[in-house]
Amino acid sequence: MKIDGVHHRTIWVADDGWSVEIFDQTRLPHELTVARLATLEDAANAISDMQVRGAPLIGATAAYGICLALRVDASDAAIDRAYDRLLATRPTAINLRWALDEMRAALRNIAREDRLAAAYARAAQICDDDVEICAAIGRHGLEILRRLAADKPKGEPVNVLTHCNAGWLATIDWGTATAPIYMAHNEGIPVHVWVDETRPRNQGAAITAYELGHHGVPHTVIADNVGGHLMQQGMVDMCITGTDRTTASGDVANKIGTYLKALAARDNDVPFYVALPSTTIDWTVSDGLVEVPIEQRSGDEVARISGRTAAGDIETVQLIPDGSPVANYAFDVTPARLVTGLITERGVAEASAEGLLDLFPERAEDKTP
Amino acid sequence: MKIDGVHHRTIWVADDGWSVEIFDQTRLPHELTVARLATLEDAANAISDMQVRGAPLIGATAAYGICLALRVDASDAAIDRAYDRLLATRPTAINLRWALDEMRAALRNIAREDRLAAAYARAAQICDDDVEICAAIGRHGLEILRRLAADKPKGEPVNVLTHCNAGWLATIDWGTATAPIYMAHNEGIPVHVWVDETRPRNQGAAITAYELGHHGVPHTVIADNVGGHLMQQGMVDMCITGTDRTTASGDVANKIGTYLKALAARDNDVPFYVALPSTTIDWTVSDGLVEVPIEQRSGDEVARISGRTAAGDIETVQLIPDGSPVANYAFDVTPARLVTGLITERGVAEASAEGLLDLFPERAEDKTP
Repeated sequence: MKIDGVHHRTIWVADDGWSVEIFDQTRLPHELTVARLATLEDAANAISDMQVRGAPLIGATAAYGICLALRVDASDAAIDRAYDRLLATRPTAINLRWALDEMRAALRNIAREDRLAAAYARAAQICDDDVEICAAIGRHGLEILRRLAADKPKGEPVNVLTHCNAGWLATIDWGTATAPIYMAHNEGIPVHVWVDETRPRNQGAAITAYELGHHGVPHTVIADNVGGHLMQQGMVDMCITGTDRTTASGDVANKIGTYLKALAARDNDVPFYVALPSTTIDWTVSDGLVEVPIEQRSGDEVARISGRTAAGDIETVQLIPDGSPVANYAFDVTPARLVTGLITERGVAEASAEGLLDLFPERAEDKTP
Repeated sequence: MKIDGVHHRTIWVADDGWSVEIFDQTRLPHELTVARLATLEDAANAISDMQVRGAPLIGATAAYGICLALRVDASDAAIDRAYDRLLATRPTAINLRWALDEMRAALRNIAREDRLAAAYARAAQICDDDVEICAAIGRHGLEILRRLAADKPKGEPVNVLTHCNAGWLATIDWGTATAPIYMAHNEGIPVHVWVDETRPRNQGAAITAYELGHHGVPHTVIADNVGGHLMQQGMVDMCITGTDRTTASGDVANKIGTYLKALAARDNDVPFYVALPSTTIDWTVSDGLVEVPIEQRSGDEVARISGRTAAGDIETVQLIPDGSPVANYAFDVTPARLVTGLITERGVAEASAEGLLDLFPERAEDKTP
């Protein structure tokens, strides 16, 4: 997507042909600077320091981390050391392990002198594949936005509400929930996005607002409490969010608060869509409310918040009384019954076991005893 | 209620017998200090600087402001000037005008030399009446908590979720939504309160958490996004909120986000109660969604937040990118169909025109054409 008119991906090989450049996302929404990764350690630190975040981007950064390690030592032992070093950066990131496995598989059975080129090629392919998956999600979601736009008085924007950040800065390009929005905007459909700030980590206010704003998409930041009122007043035409994990029956685990918006959407007949690459479907799990464990994170994320002072410094301030306990559940599960459709790279599935198997028939065989 | 073991009201006549003391609430949740009001200007500034907030407490402070003005000049003209000065502090606070009208009515037809004593007496009565209304709400709500406690395994707390601050620091004592909670706690019923932080102004995290904590009521602060998940998981036995305005048909206008919690309560069979003095029922309005205007406040409340730095200073930080628009709707309307009951000083009414008229039959005559 564009930042102030110039197209970027979130990770790319630099002009020198070998070092890797990323955006340092740690100072978002106040600043986005380019950081250069020249070594395995640079790549590992970029992941663990959260200069990069979002499953696809973490995976891609790890893939290039293997490339950078290979420049120093292309032995099997060195690849294994790099694998372990990178995997340890964010142990729960599922894409991280996947990308590292892909890289190792691509390198194992080829001659040592061919490994470096093969590694860069495989890392680039991982990035290109992710872009294509997001673009396919975007094209399928775009159809929905086109229909909504056709039903509106000419010139009135389609109002889309989103929660958290499932945007291009979490992927390589396009994002998932944002891909249909960017495509609609790019083809001239008037779109306006209500951006939930998404407490406690404020990924909406910080990241989604940043990327929409710098691409030029009209948007408005709102407190998480506001969406229900907007839907009651007819000010939302569609909700679209991402997901961390979707069950085989279409239940959606996503950032805490997603369920509340889905309830409001249902109560006000607003379509509620979830955009996802099919890799995030957990075919082994059916009942999301019972089977999906919900991560509890540090209460500090609720008790304190960081932002930019008037003087321009980043400062952290405490919001609660000393001594008050805090709970911080990171995700919730939106039951499939509240989801209008699942926008995947293969098309829009009904949020049900049948709907998903229609799009992914090969999975039906998995389930045969 | 108590602060660290000592009972307080939010406003009282000082030991000198004439000056008025309040808590300066502006540094909550980090500090609550006593401020002395000795003049009309002190009282007016305490209201406009939000050292006191909450409709009942604003009204009581204005009433004592008239007393302090009378000490200097007990003429009709001086009373009118004090009335105007105090009314201008928070023009939209409905209790403010009511309290000032009460004071003027109590003083108008009595001799000038008797006015000072009459003013202090009327101001004290306004406070006592508010305490009794809140206590009556508490007694009726307590019955509900007792029933819920009886259904729980012995020793397990009743989990109550509340939104915003309808607590004793907004009234003279007890609060509205908090009154049943304090009464249950005081009589030894184990109660635990989930405190919504209540973005954007964070009255839950700042004020409700403070007052519950210092009275000794177990509580946990959560982001506003969390309540739905807690209800899905059976971790909430009851919701209770306050209200700014309830319609004659039982629709409830309250702090933005209340509606989302009511939806989650309904979806999970959790009872959802609203506590209110009957003075906040607007008998002239029926359809809350159409007829209740929703205040839009400054976007700065969403874009920036204040808290205490590690160094102990109060600092304001910006949370959103420069240039991103913000919308700040302050209230929403929860339709009566989602409200289990309205806890008033006369008892618990069904949230409907019939339910309210059962408790307030004198209002039926108002409606006869």
